Formats: sequence, C-alpha cells, structure tokens
Amino acid sequence: MSGLVHFEDVEVGQTQRFGRYEVSKEEIIEYARQFDPQPFHVDEEAAGRSMFGGLIASGWHTCAMFIRMICDHALPGAATAGALGFDDLKWLKPVRPGDVLSVETRVKERIESPSRHAVGTVKIESRVLNQRGELVLSLVGISMYRRRQEGAA
Amino acid sequence: MSGLVHFEDVEVGQTQRFGRYEVSKEEIIEYARQFDPQPFHVDEEAAGRSMFGGLIASGWHTCAMFIRMICDHALPGAATAGALGFDDLKWLKPVRPGDVLSVETRVKERIESPSRHAVGTVKIESRVLNQRGELVLSLVGISMYRRRQEGAA
Repeated sequence: MSGLVHFEDVEVGQTQRFGRYEVSKEEIIEYARQFDPQPFHVDEEAAGRSMFGGLIASGWHTCAMFIRMICDHALPGAATAGALGFDDLKWLKPVRPGDVLSVETRVKERIESPSRHAVGTVKIESRVLNQRGELVLSLVGISMYRRRQEGAA
Repeated sequence: MSGLVHFEDVEVGQTQRFGRYEVSKEEIIEYARQFDPQPFHVDEEAAGRSMFGGLIASGWHTCAMFIRMICDHALPGAATAGALGFDDLKWLKPVRPGDVLSVETRVKERIESPSRHAVGTVKIESRVLNQRGELVLSLVGISMYRRRQEGAA
C-alpha cells in the first residue's frame, strides 16, 4: 500500500535512534504545576535542599517528552493502530534543566493475533538517553501494527 | 515521627479510593498539541472519522491526570521516597471530554530491601475509573517508602 512499516515488515531486533528534546526549567515547572506538583519538580529552592540537589522533571513529564519524540520521528513511518500499554517502565536517572534527550528503540517481540487478522502486536523496548549517553528512562511499549493485507491469515 | 504511612505501616491488601478529575476538551487538545499530536487527540473532526468516533485523551495524558490525583490525595499521607517505575500499564478504554475520573489503589507487594535499611519497596496496583465505573487505566507502581526508624534492621 505504502512505504509505511506494517506488521509484516517488523522483525525482532530492528533498532532505531532518533529525537532531540531540549529540557527547559520553565517546561519542567509548568508540567509539574499542572500534574505533579511535588517540591523537587516545581520549586527550585526546595529542590536544591532535596535528595536530588536541584530541580528535576516529573517522571511522567519525561514520558511525555518521550512520546513527543515517538510522534515526531517513529509514528509517521509506521502503520500503527494504537498503543495497548507498556511494561517494565523504569526511571533510572533524574532529568534536569538543560538536558538533551534522545531515543533508541529495539523490537523485542512480534505476536500474531489469533483472533484479529487485520493487526498484530509488537513489543518495542525504548530507552531514553541524555546528552551524556546516560539512560534516564526505559520501557517496553505494546502496540498494534496494521497488516498490509487485511484479512490475510 | 508523624501520622504519615511509613514502610512498617504498609500491608498487602490495603485499599484506597480517591480523586475526582474532570476531563475537558480544551485540556485534552492542549496536552496533545504539546506532547502527543495525533489526529484523534488534537482534531475534533479527524477524531470523529477515526476508529474512536470522537476526541480522546492521549494515554499519557490519562497517566498525568492519575498522577495529579495521587499527588493531591495519596502522597500527602505517605512517607514516600520516590517512584522507581511502573509495570503492566494498560489503557483499557478511551477517556473522552466530560469524563470524570477517580482512582482505586491496592497494595500488591511489600519488599524489604536487603541493602538499604532506611527504605522499603512497595508495589501498588492502581486503577483509574470513569464516572460509569469503567476501568480506563490500570498499572502497578513501584515506589520506595521510608522506614520509621532509619537504620533499623
């Protein structure tokens, strides 16, 4: 149908690297005021006195930055049909103002659906790294990919 | 020390119900424009033509609403020392404008740390429900709780 990656094109072990997300103090505070107003996310002084020694992004904000990079770089080329959820999410290092994040993905598992012939399930391990190559977030996403030929066995 | 729930106070099976989050169209679009600009999250017309039949919140936005309810209702009473990550996150039903969400939690596991005596690890299963009692999101959070007496065996 198109150059999009369909379920048939997915192979375990395929990798991608993409994205560049610059983390600002203003965005950390704005996100956290709305959704995760803990002192070390919203208050620079309190954050300085905390175990983190300074302002850090909400872990859920880091997830949001990750999905923005997925939207910009990975989804446009993929015949996805929705995300079901994820497993094994780990916040491994704090994300701080000035950090620049990027993503590495690796196809971990490819599962034929016994009941749904138009789609298959793909598990993709994603790693979010900072500018020093340190792993800050890892997770395994579970998504559906469309098949090229709907109704194929 | 205080009335806060410390690691020693946590028991498997403890439950809590709390929160009331009213989901607005404006907030769905605002979040998604920033972090997850897929058509069914940002464009009412395109969403109407999609498999969802109307605008739905980004799954990550639903997570953000969840953490806001956790911040407002669960964290103030708990001696937590940070979240490590999550397992088994499932987006089970779309969240739509006008929905009103709430949270149910249940302590699933309580793990003594062999190396860190000041904290213990707690796994809490959380469920986010809409106003019809339908489950829209479930996940298992992995957090650290402080012990009442630091250094206790």
